[in-house]
Amino acid sequence: MNLGTLIGLLLGIILIGTAAFMSSMATGVSLTALIDVVSLLIVVGGSLSATAIAFKMKTVFRLFRLLKMIFKDDDFTLVDVVDDLCDLADANRRGRKELEAALAANPQSMKFRMYMVKDGCELILGGSKIDEVETILENMEEYREQREVQEMNVMKSLGVYAPAFGMVGTLIGLIFMLKGMGQPAPPGTDIDPQAQMGQAMAVALITTLYGSLFANFLFLPFADKLKGKNEDKKVQSAIMTEGILLIAQKAHPLQVRERLNAYLPPAQRKKLEDE
Amino acid sequence: MNLGTLIGLLLGIILIGTAAFMSSMATGVSLTALIDVVSLLIVVGGSLSATAIAFKMKTVFRLFRLLKMIFKDDDFTLVDVVDDLCDLADANRRGRKELEAALAANPQSMKFRMYMVKDGCELILGGSKIDEVETILENMEEYREQREVQEMNVMKSLGVYAPAFGMVGTLIGLIFMLKGMGQPAPPGTDIDPQAQMGQAMAVALITTLYGSLFANFLFLPFADKLKGKNEDKKVQSAIMTEGILLIAQKAHPLQVRERLNAYLPPAQRKKLEDE
Amino acid sequence: MNLGTLIGLLLGIILIGTAAFMSSMATGVSLTALIDVVSLLIVVGGSLSATAIAFKMKTVFRLFRLLKMIFKDDDFTLVDVVDDLCDLADANRRGRKELEAALAANPQSMKFRMYMVKDGCELILGGSKIDEVETILENMEEYREQREVQEMNVMKSLGVYAPAFGMVGTLIGLIFMLKGMGQPAPPGTDIDPQAQMGQAMAVALITTLYGSLFANFLFLPFADKLKGKNEDKKVQSAIMTEGILLIAQKAHPLQVRERLNAYLPPAQRKKLEDE
Amino acid sequence: MNLGTLIGLLLGIILIGTAAFMSSMATGVSLTALIDVVSLLIVVGGSLSATAIAFKMKTVFRLFRLLKMIFKDDDFTLVDVVDDLCDLADANRRGRKELEAALAANPQSMKFRMYMVKDGCELILGGSKIDEVETILENMEEYREQREVQEMNVMKSLGVYAPAFGMVGTLIGLIFMLKGMGQPAPPGTDIDPQAQMGQAMAVALITTLYGSLFANFLFLPFADKLKGKNEDKKVQSAIMTEGILLIAQKAHPLQVRERLNAYLPPAQRKKLEDE
Amino acid sequence: MNLGTLIGLLLGIILIGTAAFMSSMATGVSLTALIDVVSLLIVVGGSLSATAIAFKMKTVFRLFRLLKMIFKDDDFTLVDVVDDLCDLADANRRGRKELEAALAANPQSMKFRMYMVKDGCELILGGSKIDEVETILENMEEYREQREVQEMNVMKSLGVYAPAFGMVGTLIGLIFMLKGMGQPAPPGTDIDPQAQMGQAMAVALITTLYGSLFANFLFLPFADKLKGKNEDKKVQSAIMTEGILLIAQKAHPLQVRERLNAYLPPAQRKKLEDE
Repeated sequence: MNLGTLIGLLLGIILIGTAAFMSSMATGVSLTALIDVVSLLIVVGGSLSATAIAFKMKTVFRLFRLLKMIFKDDDFTLVDVVDDLCDLADANRRGRKELEAALAANPQSMKFRMYMVKDGCELILGGSKIDEVETILENMEEYREQREVQEMNVMKSLGVYAPAFGMVGTLIGLIFMLKGMGQPAPPGTDIDPQAQMGQAMAVALITTLYGSLFANFLFLPFADKLKGKNEDKKVQSAIMTEGILLIAQKAHPLQVRERLNAYLPPAQRKKLEDE
Repeated sequence: MNLGTLIGLLLGIILIGTAAFMSSMATGVSLTALIDVVSLLIVVGGSLSATAIAFKMKTVFRLFRLLKMIFKDDDFTLVDVVDDLCDLADANRRGRKELEAALAANPQSMKFRMYMVKDGCELILGGSKIDEVETILENMEEYREQREVQEMNVMKSLGVYAPAFGMVGTLIGLIFMLKGMGQPAPPGTDIDPQAQMGQAMAVALITTLYGSLFANFLFLPFADKLKGKNEDKKVQSAIMTEGILLIAQKAHPLQVRERLNAYLPPAQRKKLEDE
Repeated sequence: MNLGTLIGLLLGIILIGTAAFMSSMATGVSLTALIDVVSLLIVVGGSLSATAIAFKMKTVFRLFRLLKMIFKDDDFTLVDVVDDLCDLADANRRGRKELEAALAANPQSMKFRMYMVKDGCELILGGSKIDEVETILENMEEYREQREVQEMNVMKSLGVYAPAFGMVGTLIGLIFMLKGMGQPAPPGTDIDPQAQMGQAMAVALITTLYGSLFANFLFLPFADKLKGKNEDKKVQSAIMTEGILLIAQKAHPLQVRERLNAYLPPAQRKKLEDE
Repeated sequence: MNLGTLIGLLLGIILIGTAAFMSSMATGVSLTALIDVVSLLIVVGGSLSATAIAFKMKTVFRLFRLLKMIFKDDDFTLVDVVDDLCDLADANRRGRKELEAALAANPQSMKFRMYMVKDGCELILGGSKIDEVETILENMEEYREQREVQEMNVMKSLGVYAPAFGMVGTLIGLIFMLKGMGQPAPPGTDIDPQAQMGQAMAVALITTLYGSLFANFLFLPFADKLKGKNEDKKVQSAIMTEGILLIAQKAHPLQVRERLNAYLPPAQRKKLEDE
Repeated sequence: MNLGTLIGLLLGIILIGTAAFMSSMATGVSLTALIDVVSLLIVVGGSLSATAIAFKMKTVFRLFRLLKMIFKDDDFTLVDVVDDLCDLADANRRGRKELEAALAANPQSMKFRMYMVKDGCELILGGSKIDEVETILENMEEYREQREVQEMNVMKSLGVYAPAFGMVGTLIGLIFMLKGMGQPAPPGTDIDPQAQMGQAMAVALITTLYGSLFANFLFLPFADKLKGKNEDKKVQSAIMTEGILLIAQKAHPLQVRERLNAYLPPAQRKKLEDE
């Protein structure tokens, strides 16, 4: 579970709720003044429809996968990946059989083996040349990133279109309000016309509020989170690519660790003496 | 037919229509309050004229070709292209005659052969060196992309100018309304002046609404879709360039597939054993 | 004559004129309500003065040359350039004398010879090495582009400052209007104060209208056009650089055409068999 | 202590305070009119919660470390680093033992030795090849920068979300104010309704004020400062990488200084004759 | 003296002054309505304080040096630099002594010798290898540019923060005005409350006006000018680097001119025959 996302969401809901509650108290207007289903439809529906036009259908459907990614944390660290690569380097130096056995088993340092580590080692075992392994791994990573960035852009796109449709909704509300100004009040109602105008304008503004909230409290922070996750993946890939190439060169595990340590923050680097 | 575009357009029209209908009900103002031909002319005509100034005539005329592209899906997948390249690699290893025959026939995996695959194989058959084939294919792709990006910018440009002309129209409306404030009401009409002002302002705001809707519901999502399509084409070109170079080196079809698999999402990679 | 620019300008003027005329009819206010010389001075003069500060004097004076560029089309196509390069390659293979003669004469495919083709061939005749020719041509192109981009930025800069000075003018108008609110109406006039305020505000808004129109209808589309022209020049330069290097290597005209075809859109490529 | 940050903060507080005080005098309204705890909660809490969603928890917690960085200056100059590298180059030329001794001791030119200098020299002593040392140092620097840029983005993100939540707060306030317009004044109060509306709007605007102040007076300038500090670090790293590679090549201290002087502003370059 | 900056400043002051004067005439409000010291303090002081926080103290103090740069023109042209490099190439071919003499004397083509030319020739005389000279010169230029870009960002930063603090000042004014709406007019004054509100709002808007003017008429055009000057310096550096490397290779002055001509606009290229 990703704590940051959860805490951020709760904190924001509490704060904005409190602010709304206190405004409601001060003005004597019910909190329901902030709730309007049509506004919600325009903002969420409108930004979803613009996004559906802007992207391929199957990319839009990945939205749920993205939401899952936002709320879930990786259950391994960069150090675990480095440990696994050092173990595989060790196995490879002891012989082809050993590497095959190590690959078949689960890694000791983490619960599962990264796809890229597995694919890379299989290329080595399959007899591909180092240059070719490097080209294949780099292409894999480049096009993985391109695909995932496209998916993440769906979230960013929602964040861009939400305020725009918020404004569209407000404009529609304003136009009807202004057009209706000269009309006689419907019989049976005795609200004074200025109050009626105020209420219509309040409803019109709700769409702008929703547009701003959905963009700045949900879609854009979500898009930022996904961007951060993608950058993490790029570091992982860089470590794995360098690690696999070192394994292919039958480098000593100590050298593998020394080289891969450079990718880690100083506090996480395992000292070579620890080996 | 591109489902995403269609669903997005329908969903958006229904949602905004509903919102307008409910506002119309609530205020007792006819739905026609949102329709104004002059506003439409200013927003669509103005952004088209700015775009006509900004681009070459023939690029602007491609707009219709772009619209067709937005609504049409590719009828082949990346895997089909990889399959065709593997087949051609196989033919080439069996001899020059075989490659010529394979090129003359339709591909087995898809309904037509990509231009670039054909041009590349013809260069190989024509005796060009691998370096030269690579340079020519890369130039073709670079300048194809440059031409198409320029065409797509027409759509983006419409999305940028539409809200600007929406604002121009609103400003013109406001200026006339404000200038007319001191004038006596025309004889025979007995609308009170405030209501008259409200109506004039409603009409002025319609242009802003149209500018925002055309930009955020049509032009900008269309531009995003075209950008996505261009990125797809770049992946196709990368696959074809690498594939053709491998064919030129008389690489084994299995090796071709292994190398080209790196460009595909893991789920679409055909296993080498399937061959 | 560049048709796009002309049509765009006419279309825009007609549309905005129509909109203004219809607003004028509807409100009974004269069309002259949109004309204000001081506003014109602030917007055009202000953005010109900011641009004069931002750029070198001589770059600003190029503005007229830029306007000419916007309204004039090239009287040759990329194919003409390729044809000329193929002819020169042919001449060069027949001997140094032939190349000199071909260079002295006008090209057969177009009315004049591009400077870069001439300079490049002279370098070859002067005995420069291929590497050196490449370096010199690339530097020429890089610094030509840099100079022209700087000039084009003058137009873009006008488009950025115009709305800003539009806002400055409106603010000045608003401040005076608001300051004057408490004052007694000048004797002899009997306009009611609210109408007076409306008129002052109308005049204040004209500056914003002009700022938006000058930016979005003239300066920014002009800047986009110049950017497109620069991109065209880059393609021309790329073709000429590659062509000259091939001539220097005494490549066969057919090979020159094959290599240069890669820069052209498929429809414009002359088939090698046509030669 | 970083004087710029301190002076900027004090100057800004004094100026804005004076402006608020003079406005307070002129209108006869107490200065407390600018203080509203709910607005503070919405702006600071809201932007913090959006940032918590957008980043990893541990990155957000680094915020305090970032604030310390903003207020603290480096206690060494680039020249000190160059001096230390020259000393180490000198030691290395005198022998491996000398370098080990120099590394164990404190540098003569500064209070502590930069991590990167130490790590680099240890790699040399450990027998790594020059290529490998270069790769490791460059990777260290690349991923250090990437990590720190991600941390700095937390500050920038606060600066982007603060005005957005300022607007959200103002919209909530406006909606309640407008909704409450038709309501009868609560019994016992005899404020006229227009004054009441003015007061509600004043409170609503405070959130926008806070959003703008927090972004433009604190978060965004802080983010700029951090960006500047990161650029300083990149220069330091470039100097250290080049210096260490020269040491590894057993370059003469004079040559080391000559090469590293190129990174320094002319005024700080120690002349070689001074050595 | 830089004419562009001067003419731009004068033109802008005259135009805006005229506009203010005519608005003043039309409304019967004194021109002093546009002058407000507190607003000036908030905008200039506020943007200066934000900039002081955002940059290092010593970078901010360079602001005056930057202003001098904006108003001063170079007293040499690119052609002068090329001429000097050709003269030095000629001297170097005649012998080491001749180069030393030429370096000691003033250049014939310009009043002083560029630092970089001097440093480069000294490196050659000092016996550095061509590769090393190239590395040192490129580093010098890269880090010179980085330092100067950082300094120029101070000006850009002022242009970004000025409108923000303009808005802050306006918000403070608005909040006090709105809060004071219900208050009884101070005894002894008999201005009607609406006029009082208009005046307070006029004062509040002055800060926005100042923010926009300082940004768009001074800070941002100044920042653009500095950017242009930096780009000029980059061309100079590129010419000098290539020239010095050619001198180091003992290239013939004619060849030096031919190579360096590529960096100049065609009109400024001295023909080789002129030599």
